[in-house]
Amino acid sequence: MTNLKKFQTEWLPKINQQLEADLSDVSTDDDLVAMMKYAVLNGGKRLRPLMTLAVVDSFGKQITPSILKVATAIEWIHSYSLVHDDLPAMDNDMFRRGKPSVHALYGESNAILVGDALLTGAFNVIATANDNLETNDISDKKLLSIVQNLSRESGGSGMVLGQIYDMDNHNNEQNIDDKWLINNVYTMKTSALLRFSALTGAILSDQHTSDTERSIKEMMYNFGENFGLAFQIQDDLDDYAQDQLEDINSLPHLLGVTGAKSVLEKHLSLAQKSLDDTVKQNKQFNRNLLDDFINLIGDKK
Amino acid sequence: MTNLKKFQTEWLPKINQQLEADLSDVSTDDDLVAMMKYAVLNGGKRLRPLMTLAVVDSFGKQITPSILKVATAIEWIHSYSLVHDDLPAMDNDMFRRGKPSVHALYGESNAILVGDALLTGAFNVIATANDNLETNDISDKKLLSIVQNLSRESGGSGMVLGQIYDMDNHNNEQNIDDKWLINNVYTMKTSALLRFSALTGAILSDQHTSDTERSIKEMMYNFGENFGLAFQIQDDLDDYAQDQLEDINSLPHLLGVTGAKSVLEKHLSLAQKSLDDTVKQNKQFNRNLLDDFINLIGDKK
Repeated sequence: MTNLKKFQTEWLPKINQQLEADLSDVSTDDDLVAMMKYAVLNGGKRLRPLMTLAVVDSFGKQITPSILKVATAIEWIHSYSLVHDDLPAMDNDMFRRGKPSVHALYGESNAILVGDALLTGAFNVIATANDNLETNDISDKKLLSIVQNLSRESGGSGMVLGQIYDMDNHNNEQNIDDKWLINNVYTMKTSALLRFSALTGAILSDQHTSDTERSIKEMMYNFGENFGLAFQIQDDLDDYAQDQLEDINSLPHLLGVTGAKSVLEKHLSLAQKSLDDTVKQNKQFNRNLLDDFINLIGDKK
Repeated sequence: MTNLKKFQTEWLPKINQQLEADLSDVSTDDDLVAMMKYAVLNGGKRLRPLMTLAVVDSFGKQITPSILKVATAIEWIHSYSLVHDDLPAMDNDMFRRGKPSVHALYGESNAILVGDALLTGAFNVIATANDNLETNDISDKKLLSIVQNLSRESGGSGMVLGQIYDMDNHNNEQNIDDKWLINNVYTMKTSALLRFSALTGAILSDQHTSDTERSIKEMMYNFGENFGLAFQIQDDLDDYAQDQLEDINSLPHLLGVTGAKSVLEKHLSLAQKSLDDTVKQNKQFNRNLLDDFINLIGDKK
């Protein structure tokens, strides 16, 4: 059993419990709560909150209830983005993980509003992370910087922009090449939230910016970004293996399987290099869990 | 010239400048910036940020650049809600203030994403309010409590829920009466953001919760809530005067013009009472500006 498997076994149920508890409190309206739970509590792997918690654990910091709560806010954002991406005006997907998508089950207007409520609620989860605790476990300054990072990485310079570029890509409105696809769609749409997840772990484990050339926070940010790019390319390779004729331009369509695999390997190496750099800076840092994240992808799977 | 007119003449251009500056920075993508500006910089009255600033001014506190910036975040939220409400799956409005609505001009998927980016960006505006200033003008604790209040009042317990109820109302899915309409649609959809605006003014002018029975923050919250209800009923009375046959159930449809006017007067009186109470608690409080807000509505117009 890998370190990550053990870690998942411990933390996945706690992540789901926290999501369930906060979603139950999000509204006085039972129907809205039920729709939001349908969107979130769907058997997801919780990769993003797990990454935040794994980073905290790798730095030897204890995962407190407040830290757990902040990590789960990322899943609210991830879930909202899936609900809106599935809409008829976007990718028009009627199914998500083998079940009807939110708009397929509850209608388009409800799906738009469920997404809006999840996006809004994510910020409430972060801002209330210290509530019901006797001490202010996470400083207000840290929580505010997490709000700032999340709103940047998920908004018009991050995920929302990535989805706009992806729509251009779907509609063949853009003369795309591999660099455009990686820098715009893959980095914004997929990597932005994963680099936020890793960065947030560094913030929560008190890895302050040092005077050295590259700070630990930057290293974790780079780790998350490169892991995210490799993760997305692997996803596209899996899709390509199933259906090469799909009309969406993806990296395997542009570079072939061998070319796409070589880009994937490049980003996995860069992710590993970020861990190498972190080890050099911080002797307490244990890289095993994050190496297991890397091993989830590609030939090492 | 009323106090409010003078106040508007001074602050409306500054609000619009701040909105313009932050919107210019929201994305590296010029097209997205242009769409977001189209949604926000549309000649609106900026009632909500003006209310926040008016409350700050009424307590004799100086309006700093950071306070101005926080107030404008409310307009990002208000604008996002209009963009999403206008969508084909919602109210299907092709026009907004005599110009094409965002989806009519830029398409449905862009309108959904512009709304998402505005909603997300509002939290970035608040979280970065102190940036570029030498001192932390507003404490992190205050900014975090503003994030917390905004995410509550605009999410699944506030504006989003109000829109869900309003859709039920449009679709005649609900056996509605005047109390249901006021408590659900009017309070959630309209009042939630106005009571947030007034409350935020109290927070920004350091009106701490006192030991007295009702705190100043609560009084401002109640002022905003009752002003918001009166404002919405006036809007419905204006619409009703133009077209009594519109198929949406509004208060004048349910209670007649005289009945609706009497509910409106009740909420204006309650708003005035909140100002009476505030004067009693805080001798420095100058109610003139907020009285002018009340005078915008109803027969006193």
